[in-house]
Amino acid sequence: MPITTVKVLTDVLKATREEAGRLRADFAAAGTFVIDLIGGPGCGKTALLEASLPALARRFRTAVLVGDVATARDAERLAGRGAEAIQLCTEGACHLSPSLVRVGLAELTGGDRARYPRLLLVENVGNLVCPASFDLGEDAKVAMSALTEGPDKPEKYPALFHKAAAVVLNKMDLAGAVEFDRDFYWSQVGRINPRAARFELSARTAAGLDAWISWVAAGVEKKRQKP
Amino acid sequence: MPITTVKVLTDVLKATREEAGRLRADFAAAGTFVIDLIGGPGCGKTALLEASLPALARRFRTAVLVGDVATARDAERLAGRGAEAIQLCTEGACHLSPSLVRVGLAELTGGDRARYPRLLLVENVGNLVCPASFDLGEDAKVAMSALTEGPDKPEKYPALFHKAAAVVLNKMDLAGAVEFDRDFYWSQVGRINPRAARFELSARTAAGLDAWISWVAAGVEKKRQKP
Repeated sequence: MPITTVKVLTDVLKATREEAGRLRADFAAAGTFVIDLIGGPGCGKTALLEASLPALARRFRTAVLVGDVATARDAERLAGRGAEAIQLCTEGACHLSPSLVRVGLAELTGGDRARYPRLLLVENVGNLVCPASFDLGEDAKVAMSALTEGPDKPEKYPALFHKAAAVVLNKMDLAGAVEFDRDFYWSQVGRINPRAARFELSARTAAGLDAWISWVAAGVEKKRQKP
Repeated sequence: MPITTVKVLTDVLKATREEAGRLRADFAAAGTFVIDLIGGPGCGKTALLEASLPALARRFRTAVLVGDVATARDAERLAGRGAEAIQLCTEGACHLSPSLVRVGLAELTGGDRARYPRLLLVENVGNLVCPASFDLGEDAKVAMSALTEGPDKPEKYPALFHKAAAVVLNKMDLAGAVEFDRDFYWSQVGRINPRAARFELSARTAAGLDAWISWVAAGVEKKRQKP
């Protein structure tokens, strides 16, 4: 029985990887820069997108896919900010899969490559563990923490921080209200993933937001449509 | 292939349920009251245990099993508070399984029922999704949020809040620093699970802690060893 289990699960993971590969090829052909934003519940993922979308959507055709276990509340929050937002309900699952991203993409574009956005922001399910394991065909995974969660998250959830192209520390406006050892936080990031871009910001007050927006925009600019 | 997948996964889930059933029977025979504490990263699970342990361990033989993906930091924080604390490293998995609880229990008791604690506090991996699906043989799952995560968590993670015997809202000491609609939070809990016990507290300042400790102690008192 264990042997069968391994075989079948391997097949399922292989199919998932293949779908991620097809997404990556489609995004490359269309020149779509894709971010997979991952953080725990309430770290401010939707708030960061709310704050970033107006500036980004003014420069690039931008779309958002928002993963959630049960509600459509996040896509509702993101409506009317210059980008199309589609909610992907995982119906209880703890992460977005490449096949759900494919569903969202089909909804956005009708399968027409000319309708792909230049920037696709994927907000994953609020979870620091499982989404780290799933390739969605993205260019960059972004690991997000909030100051209020305490500074020990990078070493407690190393898989995500190891893979992340950027680390965002949010809720800096609460630095006066909670104790938080910033040196400890960033020293863990430095050990796990020294090359990750680092951002300290407040999605609520917009402090530090410009550097993050510039980083995203640079990713979009660098990604060019394949001839 | 899909049929095989379902079959094998069903077998795995069945084995997991059976192990949970054996744990529940062993806890019943020993008269051990078991709490499975579930909340997102940084909501304050370890802080709540740190704050509660001295009072509880004075009254009852108490032990703690702490689940974590990668570090032993939480068990280290809990050491020296009157209860034995054992770290269960899930090695990347997003939840505690009944078999890992069995490993921790064997470590605590050497399999000797006379050495079972009266109160076993299980701190699950920081995750609002996956741990809700796994029976650990506990008497009560406790759903924990922090004020700083925003008030929309119950309806975004309904499986956990539906199963929880109690809901703990932590970090009330930050009520002045962050906006939080308490009525909205508790009205969701009321819709999903009207019978859940409700606690507002601050693990940091100990405000509201007594009611929570009394609830836990009442559970221990009610659970009697089977003859």
